[in-house]
Amino acid sequence: MTAIRLHSYFRSSTSVRVRVALRMKGLDYSYVAWNLRRREHLSDSYLSVNPQGVVPALEMDGLILTQSVPIIEYLEERFPDPPLLPADLPGRARVRGLAAMIACEVHPLNNLRVLTYLNDRFAADEAVQAEWFRHWTCATLDPLEKMLAGSSRTGTFCHGETPGLADICLFAQMLNNRRFGLEEERWPTLGRIHRACLEIPAFALAAPEQQPDAV
Amino acid sequence: MTAIRLHSYFRSSTSVRVRVALRMKGLDYSYVAWNLRRREHLSDSYLSVNPQGVVPALEMDGLILTQSVPIIEYLEERFPDPPLLPADLPGRARVRGLAAMIACEVHPLNNLRVLTYLNDRFAADEAVQAEWFRHWTCATLDPLEKMLAGSSRTGTFCHGETPGLADICLFAQMLNNRRFGLEEERWPTLGRIHRACLEIPAFALAAPEQQPDAV
Repeated sequence: MTAIRLHSYFRSSTSVRVRVALRMKGLDYSYVAWNLRRREHLSDSYLSVNPQGVVPALEMDGLILTQSVPIIEYLEERFPDPPLLPADLPGRARVRGLAAMIACEVHPLNNLRVLTYLNDRFAADEAVQAEWFRHWTCATLDPLEKMLAGSSRTGTFCHGETPGLADICLFAQMLNNRRFGLEEERWPTLGRIHRACLEIPAFALAAPEQQPDAV
Repeated sequence: MTAIRLHSYFRSSTSVRVRVALRMKGLDYSYVAWNLRRREHLSDSYLSVNPQGVVPALEMDGLILTQSVPIIEYLEERFPDPPLLPADLPGRARVRGLAAMIACEVHPLNNLRVLTYLNDRFAADEAVQAEWFRHWTCATLDPLEKMLAGSSRTGTFCHGETPGLADICLFAQMLNNRRFGLEEERWPTLGRIHRACLEIPAFALAAPEQQPDAV
């Protein structure tokens, strides 16, 4: 296996996800920082890595992998232990479904480029951006709380006693929430799972403030 | 196997994806329509199916599956033939990555509930909504065109000669684009792949106008 290089930004929620997964799989990697605030992800040098101009991207096995959940699915297939998805098909569908609620419905609406565009196009100041963030986050996390609290398959983590893909997405989102005034008390089950994740080094060390480019 | 019931809305792009996948796998299903314009997806009867209040949801095998890409991953694992993902790991990562560009970065910003909220919150009329739609669609489909046109792994379809998960997401998106004045000439490769998909009955029959609730 060739060396692994992660293209990342400390605060990027999708970068957090991949950092957790790499650590969960016990994989060492080098960290290449791109400062989104300084628009470094739109530089020619980064576009030559990922033409889409978004982080993260992961270089490994002679490949350039993009999109955080597909990257994690690759890591899962390449290094099955410890697993980030359950072995049974219904469990896999449940975990992927929970992860997609965050990956496909919360984060895409609330990342930096969308908030910036709201400001540019609708003169949305920081307060209005925060209102937008909270609206879409609650629209999904409120039912997510109900679904997790109401399922016998929920355990210490989103699915039983083993942290996995859904926990990874939830963890990254809950970190983001704090910056926009959303406290975890609103969602007792999500908050409990988030705190359980924080006790695991692979999660704690993937947090933004632990990264070399943190400011 | 118990009967399969698809909860759907004819125009929903994520519902299109699941309809294509079911047909690709040769699975019969009954169609349960929920009219998003009439807010039927927020009714108690639908929330008892999917507490998140979004379509599609798929009832099968005694489960209620939600989130279109995880539903398709379930169908893929449950009925491996014909495959919707390549067999090799790099190929699987590529197809999932291409699919996620649409599923995680185009569609979430451009669905009906977001456009409605833009109108409610920022008084964005139809023209402004269409501008928003085009902005986010082009932000991802422009680099997607480059990535597909520049890869030797692109064939008649997004990945070689077999239609799969990436084509399913692309097909549904391209149908949506027309409603907002985005013609496929902008993206020659995407347009070519879209037309190749349209020649396959599983795709053509999944289009909005073919559904029982089409108006």
